[in-house]
Amino acid sequence: MEFTINQVAELLEGRVEGNGEEKVYTIKGIEEGTKGSISFLSNPKYEPFIYDTDSSAVIVKDDFKPKKEVKTTLIFVDDPYTRFTTLLEQIQKMIHPVKSGVESPSYKCDSSQVGENIYRGAFSYIGERCKIGNNVKIYPNSYIGDDCVIGDNTIVYSGVKVYSRCQIGSQCTIHSGAVIGSDGFGFAPQEDGTYKTIPQLGNVIIEDNVDIGANTVIDRATFDSTIVKSGVKLDNLIQIAHNVVVGKNTVVASQAGISGSTKVGENCVIAGQAGIIGHLKIADKTTIAAQSGITKSIKEKGTTMLGSPAIDIRNFRQSFIYFKKLPELAERITKLEKKD
Amino acid sequence: MEFTINQVAELLEGRVEGNGEEKVYTIKGIEEGTKGSISFLSNPKYEPFIYDTDSSAVIVKDDFKPKKEVKTTLIFVDDPYTRFTTLLEQIQKMIHPVKSGVESPSYKCDSSQVGENIYRGAFSYIGERCKIGNNVKIYPNSYIGDDCVIGDNTIVYSGVKVYSRCQIGSQCTIHSGAVIGSDGFGFAPQEDGTYKTIPQLGNVIIEDNVDIGANTVIDRATFDSTIVKSGVKLDNLIQIAHNVVVGKNTVVASQAGISGSTKVGENCVIAGQAGIIGHLKIADKTTIAAQSGITKSIKEKGTTMLGSPAIDIRNFRQSFIYFKKLPELAERITKLEKKD
Amino acid sequence: MEFTINQVAELLEGRVEGNGEEKVYTIKGIEEGTKGSISFLSNPKYEPFIYDTDSSAVIVKDDFKPKKEVKTTLIFVDDPYTRFTTLLEQIQKMIHPVKSGVESPSYKCDSSQVGENIYRGAFSYIGERCKIGNNVKIYPNSYIGDDCVIGDNTIVYSGVKVYSRCQIGSQCTIHSGAVIGSDGFGFAPQEDGTYKTIPQLGNVIIEDNVDIGANTVIDRATFDSTIVKSGVKLDNLIQIAHNVVVGKNTVVASQAGISGSTKVGENCVIAGQAGIIGHLKIADKTTIAAQSGITKSIKEKGTTMLGSPAIDIRNFRQSFIYFKKLPELAERITKLEKKD
Repeated sequence: MEFTINQVAELLEGRVEGNGEEKVYTIKGIEEGTKGSISFLSNPKYEPFIYDTDSSAVIVKDDFKPKKEVKTTLIFVDDPYTRFTTLLEQIQKMIHPVKSGVESPSYKCDSSQVGENIYRGAFSYIGERCKIGNNVKIYPNSYIGDDCVIGDNTIVYSGVKVYSRCQIGSQCTIHSGAVIGSDGFGFAPQEDGTYKTIPQLGNVIIEDNVDIGANTVIDRATFDSTIVKSGVKLDNLIQIAHNVVVGKNTVVASQAGISGSTKVGENCVIAGQAGIIGHLKIADKTTIAAQSGITKSIKEKGTTMLGSPAIDIRNFRQSFIYFKKLPELAERITKLEKKD
Repeated sequence: MEFTINQVAELLEGRVEGNGEEKVYTIKGIEEGTKGSISFLSNPKYEPFIYDTDSSAVIVKDDFKPKKEVKTTLIFVDDPYTRFTTLLEQIQKMIHPVKSGVESPSYKCDSSQVGENIYRGAFSYIGERCKIGNNVKIYPNSYIGDDCVIGDNTIVYSGVKVYSRCQIGSQCTIHSGAVIGSDGFGFAPQEDGTYKTIPQLGNVIIEDNVDIGANTVIDRATFDSTIVKSGVKLDNLIQIAHNVVVGKNTVVASQAGISGSTKVGENCVIAGQAGIIGHLKIADKTTIAAQSGITKSIKEKGTTMLGSPAIDIRNFRQSFIYFKKLPELAERITKLEKKD
Repeated sequence: MEFTINQVAELLEGRVEGNGEEKVYTIKGIEEGTKGSISFLSNPKYEPFIYDTDSSAVIVKDDFKPKKEVKTTLIFVDDPYTRFTTLLEQIQKMIHPVKSGVESPSYKCDSSQVGENIYRGAFSYIGERCKIGNNVKIYPNSYIGDDCVIGDNTIVYSGVKVYSRCQIGSQCTIHSGAVIGSDGFGFAPQEDGTYKTIPQLGNVIIEDNVDIGANTVIDRATFDSTIVKSGVKLDNLIQIAHNVVVGKNTVVASQAGISGSTKVGENCVIAGQAGIIGHLKIADKTTIAAQSGITKSIKEKGTTMLGSPAIDIRNFRQSFIYFKKLPELAERITKLEKKD
């Protein structure tokens, strides 16, 4: 990218104060700005940085009044954060052109229907009787099994694998290497110590506006469906086991795992490497801290859990203060015993 | 699926009591049954549910005598759980047809031999000098390197990668994105702070009846073989490092990791996100709880371990009761000191 | 492989003492040697094994003087470890031939340039305007997006996915299923509880001599670059989030995760399943033990951390001794209270 500050201001419907002809090439946080970069100031906490930043321009709110001299050029707008996101989206359009058309060779069974303006990359595969919506982008080396449904505007990046009979909504983004619909992990122990595979007959349903990270795995249900509800954001390398339900707008960070049949509520936040055992219910707006292990259902909305096994975060933190001092506590006990 | 209850009963060689002409469409657990679903009752603990279930039919043992009125239709069979699994298998055959034939384009070196009735999906790759057994199914976008062996009836789902010289037994199922035979993580530290790669010359041997989950990785041995013995069930996103041996019929849940050269015994259960450091021996029938970290060899059969680092589960649980009360214990010590 | 011991000695410029005509087929550790295997002795700690080993031959330093009778054949060399690695490299060349040429069908946009002596496996994909160096090996079913750069001698194994605009250095090895350049996990919470996707406009830069394990994921930066510096070794199933910098020669073991914007120093060792939260700075030569969770920046070089949350390893170990004895400590407090 290369713009003058005036061009950026025009795009954002903003007013320039300073050198509008200077060129900007990149975007940086206000505290780590460099010459040629553009930043934004939305959170007042960051105001002190604006007096020292090396960014060539900073997007600020139209009522911003500097408390001392500012050497950077200012762009005054109505809502800095929203305008900044607009800028990002504009740049994205320029540097990340939308793919369309069919590259060859690719594979699609005749019984499958595809919408308008779709992209089917080379070596992508669409099985029997699929329904693929409009503007869907299926990148190279991806696999869509038989009888799958994919809604409008969904992006399936390279190397995604969707097993048969799974359903994916509209405006979803599925990153490379994600696997949707692999068999649930169900085995019946036999008397001779071996395990017999329990057929996994269900599917996976991904609702609208869901993002799924790279190499994340979502297993199909034994019967019925594993469900990821609308607005859910899943990071990379996550495990969602069979028959799990992830509630609306819940966010799950990388390498977390949710075991079989657990139902997670809406607007929860599950941090990285956390785990939840099977057959639990997690209330709406629960926060689970990184690496925590949830072993019991959570009934109260808004709970925050920490530890493995996880307990209420305040309890864990207070106990951990004393965990660090355990040798000292033990010594104090010994001292008391001696005095006795 | 759509059957009458009588049709299901015939399939399972059972006897109907109730409305055999009602139609069933799906399978549900007895406690969450709905109209049109079929359930089974095997564990007596679940008997109370049979008097309230909304399932249209329940499969029960032939000597089952209801203690009060039952509104659902009953199908009496000799062994409810086994018959139920038969039902699942029958449904699976209907909804998940067996693939066969060669889709085009796919790639196979002339020096490789393939058995009868195999499936080679589009964009699948078979390198030089491989031996692929009868009824093997290789789904689209999968890669089998040079000199690999795959036994009869094994299923290799889409996007599996098998590096050269690895051996996979019969009746195995390998899920999408699994990687078998990548280099072991071996690097020799040099005096200048860099690391020199140690060539990884061994391979991976997967015995018969092994299931491998999606995106699981099994590294090749430095020399010799990383071995996954017969009947082992591996879930998704698992790490099996170089030179590991996983004993017969051991089950490993999602996101667990076993470090280099560790030997795991037979019939062990390793729960999700657990880890085992390298060069250990784990006795047969060991259970490792979720998120636990095993740092020492386990010599006694039937041990259950919990914690990170892991200790005997009873010890961990008792200690954890007091961990939660540490602030109170500290206060009690302070009180005693003041009284002194 | 099959050599006589004399042939091996010639390769290593060594001198044989014993039966040089015996054949060797494999390589084993000295403590687990078998007839037909060759081992080496470098660390004096392992000397006792040389008197009992069943290996047919052992490579030793030229000034080695046995303290008692040795039944195995000895090969005396100037530097046993280095010579042994040479042997491994020679064997690797024999059993793992270097691929070259273009298999068909594969896909490459005309606007992309490729160097000499490269391998492009079947179903591999190279997008627009890429620059691929000499001797690069791109295995089947791999995907290189638009505007990528790959340096000389780099190996990209089967099923790797590199998103557009990422840069990979020379002499790198990227294992199957690795994903480079997927979107950073950035979502802005909206007032209605949904999340808006923040465009991820940066890229990933992998410097020279980096190894990346199977199914590891490295996200692109929001702006700027996620950077993996030269000599870094990443194991399998690792998460490197957006805007992370991993310093030179740092080693990260399997299933570890580094959260967004964290800067890891040089020559650090991060063990398996460890996690680091976002926006931290980790000093050079830090060691993070397996399953540990780093929640604060580490300022002092050479620190070793353990626990979740992690503290200094000595503190954790001392506290953990008493954690195991907590029920006993509690009882001692109770006893003191009763005496009062």
